[in-house]
Amino acid sequence: MIVGGKHYRSVWLEGGTVFMLNQSVLPHRFEIFESPDHQRTTRALSNFIVRGAGVVGTAAGFALAQAVLEAPEKEFDSYIATAVDELLKLAVSPHTVAYSVERIYRKVKKAADPPAAKKAAVAEALALAEADIKACLKIGELGATLISDGIRVLIHGSGGWLSSTDWGTSLSPVYQAKRAGKNAFVWVGEGRPGFQGARLIAWELKQEDIPFALIADAAAGFFMSRGETDLVIVGCERIARNGDILARIGTYDKAVLAKTNKVPFYVATPLKNLDPHCSSGRHFPIVERSEDEVAKITGRDEVNALHTVTVLPEGVTARNPHHDVTPAKYVTGYITEKGILTLDKFKALKPEGAA
Amino acid sequence: MIVGGKHYRSVWLEGGTVFMLNQSVLPHRFEIFESPDHQRTTRALSNFIVRGAGVVGTAAGFALAQAVLEAPEKEFDSYIATAVDELLKLAVSPHTVAYSVERIYRKVKKAADPPAAKKAAVAEALALAEADIKACLKIGELGATLISDGIRVLIHGSGGWLSSTDWGTSLSPVYQAKRAGKNAFVWVGEGRPGFQGARLIAWELKQEDIPFALIADAAAGFFMSRGETDLVIVGCERIARNGDILARIGTYDKAVLAKTNKVPFYVATPLKNLDPHCSSGRHFPIVERSEDEVAKITGRDEVNALHTVTVLPEGVTARNPHHDVTPAKYVTGYITEKGILTLDKFKALKPEGAA
Repeated sequence: MIVGGKHYRSVWLEGGTVFMLNQSVLPHRFEIFESPDHQRTTRALSNFIVRGAGVVGTAAGFALAQAVLEAPEKEFDSYIATAVDELLKLAVSPHTVAYSVERIYRKVKKAADPPAAKKAAVAEALALAEADIKACLKIGELGATLISDGIRVLIHGSGGWLSSTDWGTSLSPVYQAKRAGKNAFVWVGEGRPGFQGARLIAWELKQEDIPFALIADAAAGFFMSRGETDLVIVGCERIARNGDILARIGTYDKAVLAKTNKVPFYVATPLKNLDPHCSSGRHFPIVERSEDEVAKITGRDEVNALHTVTVLPEGVTARNPHHDVTPAKYVTGYITEKGILTLDKFKALKPEGAA
Repeated sequence: MIVGGKHYRSVWLEGGTVFMLNQSVLPHRFEIFESPDHQRTTRALSNFIVRGAGVVGTAAGFALAQAVLEAPEKEFDSYIATAVDELLKLAVSPHTVAYSVERIYRKVKKAADPPAAKKAAVAEALALAEADIKACLKIGELGATLISDGIRVLIHGSGGWLSSTDWGTSLSPVYQAKRAGKNAFVWVGEGRPGFQGARLIAWELKQEDIPFALIADAAAGFFMSRGETDLVIVGCERIARNGDILARIGTYDKAVLAKTNKVPFYVATPLKNLDPHCSSGRHFPIVERSEDEVAKITGRDEVNALHTVTVLPEGVTARNPHHDVTPAKYVTGYITEKGILTLDKFKALKPEGAA
C-alpha cells in the first residue's frame, strides 16, 4: 500500500534480511525495522514490532527462512529445530505462525542437503507471503461488491494492511472499492487497549485518503442504533470448523449490536485462518496480555516528544483479554479468497490445513 | 465518602464559597477547588472540574445561591436573571442543572426582599444537596439487597460518589453492601473517551478498599459471555416518561449485551432525573463533545510529571457523542429512592417535576 506516494508491504525479505514497518512507533514515527537474523526477527514479534495475524505469520516464515540460511552445517538440523520451537512458543502466536512454520519446515526436512534446504525455505517463505497478499487482494475485490458509494462501514480490530502482508482483511474491501471509484466512509473504533484503530487504522486511512471518523469503542452501538452504520466488517485471528471466530476483543460486542440493529456483519479472512483442529469457539485459546497495555499509553506532546503515561491510580489491577469469541450465528458472511461464503458454504469447504 | 480516612462530599458550600473535589486532576492530584463567586463556579462546570449529573446539579444550585448572595441591591433581579441564564445555557447541562436552578429561582422570586431572597436561596441550595445525598444513600441501601457476597458487578459510566453530592448512584449499592458486610467484585470499564472509569471510579474503589479490575470498554461483552458477570448497574443523566434512559456513551452497548447474556441490568437513579417533558428516548438531546476529549490524554509519567499526549496521527477527525439512549425494554429495574421499580411501577409514578 501507499505511504507518501511509495508502495510498501508491511514486511518483506531481501537477501537474508527481514524488513518490517515498525508498528510500535506509528503514527508518531515512520520507521523501517531491519532484522539481520532470525533471533532478532523472533524477538521483534514478541515486542509487537508488527501485529496482526497475517503479517505475523509472514514474518514468522521469514524468521524461519533466516534461521535456515544461518544454520551452521554441523548442527544444521538442531539449529533449525530450535528456531521452529522458539517461533511456535511465541506468546503472541496467532494460528498463522504455526501455519507458516509448519509448511516451511516440511519443505526443509524434505530437502536433499543444506543448500537445497536453504533454497526451499526462502522459496516457501516468499510463496506464503505472496499467497497472503493474493488472498487479501481477492478478499478486497470480492468484498468491494458489498460496498456502494457513500456507504458507512464500521471496522473493528486490526484488519488494515499493516496487519497483513499487504492490503489487509477487513479494510481490503474498502481499499479495493476506492480503486473501483466507490468511496466508503469508515467508522474506526479506537481499539483499546492497544489503540490499534486510533494509531494504525487511522494512519492507513489517511495515507489512502479515505474519509473516516475515529470513535470510542463504546460509541459503536450509538452509531448503529441511529441508523448511521450500513455494514460492519471485522477481521479474525482464527475460525473454528463450526464458523465461530476468535478476534480482537470487542468484536463480539459489535456482532451482538449489529444483529440487534439489523446491520450486516461480515468477517473478512483468508481461509488459512481456519483452524482444522478446532471444532468450535469454545475450544479457542484466549490469551490474556499484560496489564501494562491497559495501564500505559505512549503518545506525543505538542512538540512531538514521546511520553509514556498512565491515567490510572497507583496499584490498580487490570484484566486484558486479547481476543473474544463471536459465535457463527452472528456472522452474515465470510469474505474469503474463495468467495463470500454463508455459514453452510463455509462449513462445506475442505480446510486446507486438514491435509 | 472516605478519602485518606476523612469524610468528604464531592461539593459543598461554606459561607459564600463553593468547594469541589477537582475531578480534572484526579487520580494524579487530590485537590480541592475553591470558588469564591458564582462566575467562577459556573466556569468550573464548563471546564469539567466536576462531572456527573448529581454533583453538577448541586454545584449549579450553589452557583445560583452565590449569585443571589452577590447580587447588588440596585440591579438585584437582573443580576440573578443573568446568572440563571448562564447556568441554563451551560453546554454540559444535565437535566439536574435545570432542576436545581428552577427550584431555587422560584424561592428567590417569592421572597419579600433581597435579604429574605439570599436566605431562601442558600437554604434551598443546601436542601437540594441534602436531598441528593439522601436519595443516593437510599438507592444504595435498596440496591444493596441485589448484592450478595462475592457477586461480580459490572459498572459503566460515572456513577461513583464523585458524580453525585455523596454516595453515588450505580456504585452506591456496592458501597452500602460493603457496610453490610457483603463484598462485591467490580468490573470497571475504563470509560473512554474521558477515562472516568480508569481515573475516577478506580480511585474511589481503591479509597473504599473494594476489589475490582479495570477492563477496556470493549471487553465487557467477553466477561458477560464467559459467565463472569452477575449483575450490571449503570447510572443515567435523564429518564423519559416511557422509561428510556439517556446515559454515558456505551451504556446502550452494555444493555444489549446484558440482555443477550441474560445478565440483569439495573439503572440506579434519583427520581429527579426523570424528565417530565420527555415522552421517549427519541426526544433526548444528544450532546456531542469536543474531539479533544478523544484525541488528548493526560497522564503522569514515571516521575509523576503530568503530560498531555495524543496517540492519533495528525489531522484525524473524531466523533464524540457524550451519551447514548437505552430503550426501557433493556432495563430489568430502576433503583430509585422510592424502591426498586419495574417499568410498570416506574410509569405509574407521578413525576416530581410535573408539579
